[in-house]
Amino acid sequence: MHTPICDELGIEFPIFAFTHCRDVVVAVSKAGGYGVLGAVGFTPEQLEIELNWIDEHIGDHPYGVDIVIPNKYEGMDSNMSGEELTKLLQSMVPNETLEFGRKLLRDHGVPLAEDDDNSLQLLGWTEATATPQVEIALQHPKVTLIANALGTPPKDMIEKIQAAGRKVAALCGSPKQARKHADAGVDIIIAQGGEGGGHCGEVGSIVLWPQVVKEVAPVPVLAAGGIGSGEQIAAALALGAQGAWSGSQWLMVEEAENTPVQQQTYIDASSRDTVRSRSFTGKPCRMLRNDWTEAWENPENPDPLGMPLQYMVSGMAVAATHKHPDESIDVAFNPVGQVVGQFRKVEKTSAVIERWVTEYIEATGNLDTFANATT
Amino acid sequence: MHTPICDELGIEFPIFAFTHCRDVVVAVSKAGGYGVLGAVGFTPEQLEIELNWIDEHIGDHPYGVDIVIPNKYEGMDSNMSGEELTKLLQSMVPNETLEFGRKLLRDHGVPLAEDDDNSLQLLGWTEATATPQVEIALQHPKVTLIANALGTPPKDMIEKIQAAGRKVAALCGSPKQARKHADAGVDIIIAQGGEGGGHCGEVGSIVLWPQVVKEVAPVPVLAAGGIGSGEQIAAALALGAQGAWSGSQWLMVEEAENTPVQQQTYIDASSRDTVRSRSFTGKPCRMLRNDWTEAWENPENPDPLGMPLQYMVSGMAVAATHKHPDESIDVAFNPVGQVVGQFRKVEKTSAVIERWVTEYIEATGNLDTFANATT
Repeated sequence: MHTPICDELGIEFPIFAFTHCRDVVVAVSKAGGYGVLGAVGFTPEQLEIELNWIDEHIGDHPYGVDIVIPNKYEGMDSNMSGEELTKLLQSMVPNETLEFGRKLLRDHGVPLAEDDDNSLQLLGWTEATATPQVEIALQHPKVTLIANALGTPPKDMIEKIQAAGRKVAALCGSPKQARKHADAGVDIIIAQGGEGGGHCGEVGSIVLWPQVVKEVAPVPVLAAGGIGSGEQIAAALALGAQGAWSGSQWLMVEEAENTPVQQQTYIDASSRDTVRSRSFTGKPCRMLRNDWTEAWENPENPDPLGMPLQYMVSGMAVAATHKHPDESIDVAFNPVGQVVGQFRKVEKTSAVIERWVTEYIEATGNLDTFANATT
Repeated sequence: MHTPICDELGIEFPIFAFTHCRDVVVAVSKAGGYGVLGAVGFTPEQLEIELNWIDEHIGDHPYGVDIVIPNKYEGMDSNMSGEELTKLLQSMVPNETLEFGRKLLRDHGVPLAEDDDNSLQLLGWTEATATPQVEIALQHPKVTLIANALGTPPKDMIEKIQAAGRKVAALCGSPKQARKHADAGVDIIIAQGGEGGGHCGEVGSIVLWPQVVKEVAPVPVLAAGGIGSGEQIAAALALGAQGAWSGSQWLMVEEAENTPVQQQTYIDASSRDTVRSRSFTGKPCRMLRNDWTEAWENPENPDPLGMPLQYMVSGMAVAATHKHPDESIDVAFNPVGQVVGQFRKVEKTSAVIERWVTEYIEATGNLDTFANATT
């Protein structure tokens, strides 16, 4: 399981792990993979603290940072500073929508103090608020990759990252988006199938991956959406990907900050229990179906707002998922891919990497047997 | 590309081709694969003619027959004969729904004579009407496999098929359905991911296939949903499948009866142009999105009926797809999987099989290179 991208990035296995937890970033990179910290939820000051901590613990291993600059979002043409934009967007959240979100939580018995409801925070969902994150990331030499989760990064950002000697990656859900990324000079394309957790399109991985590989060759492609075993990585490499980009699995490791309540919810879920819902971020995002997602589907209730407005409402539910896991179990934010149906237990990060490598070798060994038996 | 199931069925490659065209069945089996004739649209008398023709042209090669006995359908508990059930079901089609379908076609300029509108035909969508098809198939010794497309076949039918020395297969979209098939004694489980054309679930192939393989081992599993290249077959085998079950590709071969208009529509479509729609069969079925599928989604219009009632309405659109391809282009029945985005031309059946084998060897060769480079 060693592809050209491993040599380019100086890693042992082409296993890219997206996570919001710094401990997981460190554990993955130290185990031979490549940890990527999702930055969207951090203020620039918090991000600086996280990256310093990672730098201190990761040894000589490299890691990445994932930001979110959507191709389209409310207020994107404003040219405002992050502070001004936050005020503008806050004024655009209808009170009725915010109150509906609060009522949903209260009706489920979730404690909700006025001073800690976490609503109306913008976070890193815009170019204005993501740019400072990139600037901080570039001050950390071990950050060798910046990925954009939801669109082609702005031209000047790509140039700045590459001028600093780092690589730029971007996710896509269609060959057309991949072409746009490649034409903009993105170094690594991440093709995420509809199975994937978080923001994803509708085209399944088995169809999407090879189409994107052919569209952008020789630009390297990482396969995302449905990666939770070494067999699935073997499938991805058979389809021309140079590695795997995974997210869901890293919610289920000992080093993750996810609560035991949430991890048990994932263990109990089948692959049919996820839904692509706009109810948390405003764009279709795969997560477990629950009372929160169902409520925003109901045409009698307020419609979800666009990105990033909806998260300014749902932020309080996301916070409750961590702070009040027992009370919020039916309205929690449980982003995860269809691969959730494979989860049986919480593992150590290093054990996951070892398992995946072993499974990969077994899977490719089976293929060899079949190939050699060709009449 | 030679797995144990090849030896069990006496074929060279584990490539199973579902098609409604007898010429394609013959061409696939003669090229080393395994052709499977979809029987649902044939009366028992027509089916007998088709199977006789195949027997005469296929040489010593085996082939299969695919029937449809859904797990749930309107009138399934009636215990009526096919003729009685047809009358009962015809009486259950609301005139408003039938008229809405007719109006849709007329509004698009599709010629629709009262005597050839093909509405209110039941076809093989029930146990009562599929059982005679199985009885005919079993009279043909080269038919070595009967597959049920939409559920676990009835117990006595499984016994009858196996007593005749043939194998029983059944499609599924979840490990739970696969377990039900295996417990009923089904010999081969076909796991169809949500990418697939025709009736499919929502779980993507990359996630579904390995789950089903693990659930029913050692029962052999065929991978369906997203198969249109040898690389995709390599991925399926890496995930533990013993072969591939494909449908969409066989709409795009020279031997198929599909019209040039329809084949061009498939060539022009991207993977994002399909939709899971109830508008033709009453159950979610993947096809190209067009005016017909959109009209039945519109809440102001009549809802699609259940299976098999909806097909008694849509049958006239299906017929027009073949008879009046130019006029019906925006209301045609174009069932196809997301793999449609890969189609660039119409090929000879034997060329497709050769291409898939070559692509498979290349894909597994690439994997070997990666495996050997493991540090």
